[in-house]
Amino acid sequence: MLLIEQRLLPHEFKIIATHDFRETARAITDMIVRGAGAIGATAAYGLAQGALAFRGRELKRFSSHMETVYQTLAAARPTAVDPVNAMNDVRRAMLTGETVAEKQALALAAAEEFANEGVRYCEEIGRHGSRLIRDGMNILTHCNAGWLAFVDVGTATAPMYAAQSQGKKFHVFCDETRPRSQGASLTAWELSQQKISHLIIADNAAGHLMQHGEIDLVIVGSDRTLGRTGEVANKIGTYTTAVLAARHKIPFYAAIPLSTIDWNIKRGRDIPIEERHENEVLGAWGVNGSGKREYVRVANPASGARNPGFDVTPAELITGLITPAGIFKPAELWRNRHKLGFKQ
Amino acid sequence: MLLIEQRLLPHEFKIIATHDFRETARAITDMIVRGAGAIGATAAYGLAQGALAFRGRELKRFSSHMETVYQTLAAARPTAVDPVNAMNDVRRAMLTGETVAEKQALALAAAEEFANEGVRYCEEIGRHGSRLIRDGMNILTHCNAGWLAFVDVGTATAPMYAAQSQGKKFHVFCDETRPRSQGASLTAWELSQQKISHLIIADNAAGHLMQHGEIDLVIVGSDRTLGRTGEVANKIGTYTTAVLAARHKIPFYAAIPLSTIDWNIKRGRDIPIEERHENEVLGAWGVNGSGKREYVRVANPASGARNPGFDVTPAELITGLITPAGIFKPAELWRNRHKLGFKQ
Repeated sequence: MLLIEQRLLPHEFKIIATHDFRETARAITDMIVRGAGAIGATAAYGLAQGALAFRGRELKRFSSHMETVYQTLAAARPTAVDPVNAMNDVRRAMLTGETVAEKQALALAAAEEFANEGVRYCEEIGRHGSRLIRDGMNILTHCNAGWLAFVDVGTATAPMYAAQSQGKKFHVFCDETRPRSQGASLTAWELSQQKISHLIIADNAAGHLMQHGEIDLVIVGSDRTLGRTGEVANKIGTYTTAVLAARHKIPFYAAIPLSTIDWNIKRGRDIPIEERHENEVLGAWGVNGSGKREYVRVANPASGARNPGFDVTPAELITGLITPAGIFKPAELWRNRHKLGFKQ
Repeated sequence: MLLIEQRLLPHEFKIIATHDFRETARAITDMIVRGAGAIGATAAYGLAQGALAFRGRELKRFSSHMETVYQTLAAARPTAVDPVNAMNDVRRAMLTGETVAEKQALALAAAEEFANEGVRYCEEIGRHGSRLIRDGMNILTHCNAGWLAFVDVGTATAPMYAAQSQGKKFHVFCDETRPRSQGASLTAWELSQQKISHLIIADNAAGHLMQHGEIDLVIVGSDRTLGRTGEVANKIGTYTTAVLAARHKIPFYAAIPLSTIDWNIKRGRDIPIEERHENEVLGAWGVNGSGKREYVRVANPASGARNPGFDVTPAELITGLITPAGIFKPAELWRNRHKLGFKQ
């Protein structure tokens, strides 16, 4: 499978290949590919990749092989639900095949369908979300939920791109988003490419800007949204941004494709939160004066770090969820579940 | 004047010399020396350095020279009030001298007195603040208000060192404190040296830890505390930490030596907020794999940044102010101003 090596962006654009489903799972864990929709599509293709690699006709052996593929890919980023939803779509499609060969072909077609559906989702999110953006607004976003994270126009950025195409003028503040700095590197890069006016800020500066009336709207993405409660698990620091926005009565929206909704988990505290390697917090990756990509240790050499990758924002702090089917209040998701792709 | 080159810490310990008051002012601006009390003492010595460099006996020329010295040092870090308070102490002491030579000697003595007073202040802050720390607590701190930032035991860390010497066991989470990472580098280094159990976290993770009951107490420093309102200007991100603490009903204290109190400014929004160079946000300083100190650009090369260095925390979010004269609620400062070094 061919993937954009996102860790090198925006300093270098490189495509890498994964040769089997284990390499694909590792690419997800190592964040070569990242972002809810992108890892969803990657997991779907990874499942198809695993299916196609199977040699033989024995359905029982194939099924046990597929279980291994599924579990390996599902464990790659435990907080995100897109990979699981995407793979469930693929598995459901495979049920109608009677032979291994049929199931293999169905897996690939379903993975392609998942990716195409992602494109449509993001366009619809853009269409609905652009209504929130008015001329002259300052918008804050956290992490990267743009076209790198999803497919085509992204989720949190889709309303911005749609508003831009409607001729609206606005400005975006990108939270740096430590420890991986996806806001400073990826979102800022996307916005540059799209010629959208923007500035990067330290995550610490969002509160100060809100105090001074410099933020009118917050739009973030989501890695898992609970269909039963409207709680949003997203990149670490999203909760902090939501708490600040609520204090300043600034509307706070999460943009979510249907594949990001989890209809099973009942309470936010049951969402598994991935704890990542401490080196992400203890230093930074960047490009040095000679143009070479390098990791520098910033922290005291004798100290360690805690590194939760995600947090959960409670429904009471969320003004609305921008979905492909329209904008909903968190409490309205469950009631509208049949519009929102609920499958049981 | 001899200063610790704090930007190299904890990777290298180096003493640098400044040869005149302009170099001293630049060392403050460039954050070779940083931290409210430390730049207060440096400004006091800088004023004495400026006084001693004057050649001649003419009082009128001396006085105009001293005005230049004062304004140069005062402009070095506009948000902090310690330099101004420290220099006002020195100027007040100089008034009793009748000749240039007498005034020069008095300036040096007053600068030394300011630094010594700082040591006593921090010890008293430690004594009062240690009452807040109980066995088994998890304490969050932001930025560095330790012995590097002040003199001897620091302010925010003084209660920790005092509690440790009383045999209490506790754990500290150090906010990394982007963009300059003083928490990850300086506070973590100090705590290592003192053998206090600690972990660094991304600033984004504080909210998540609070949600999970992992923070019992927050102690920060201050760069300027308004004696009339109790508002605290401190390192960018302090306001965010206070908003989070209030939401989770976690006690939030600022530790302040008397030299950090501003009795003049009436409202927090009138505190000048220093806007620093965007490169601080766009990259990071650290040590690479070969042990060389280097700046790496993290952000998208085509993007810029906003970089306010400080924010203002309103009194309503502050549980108490740990001063050398005891712990006060923000609204109690003005009533107790005569105990708290108010001079008019």
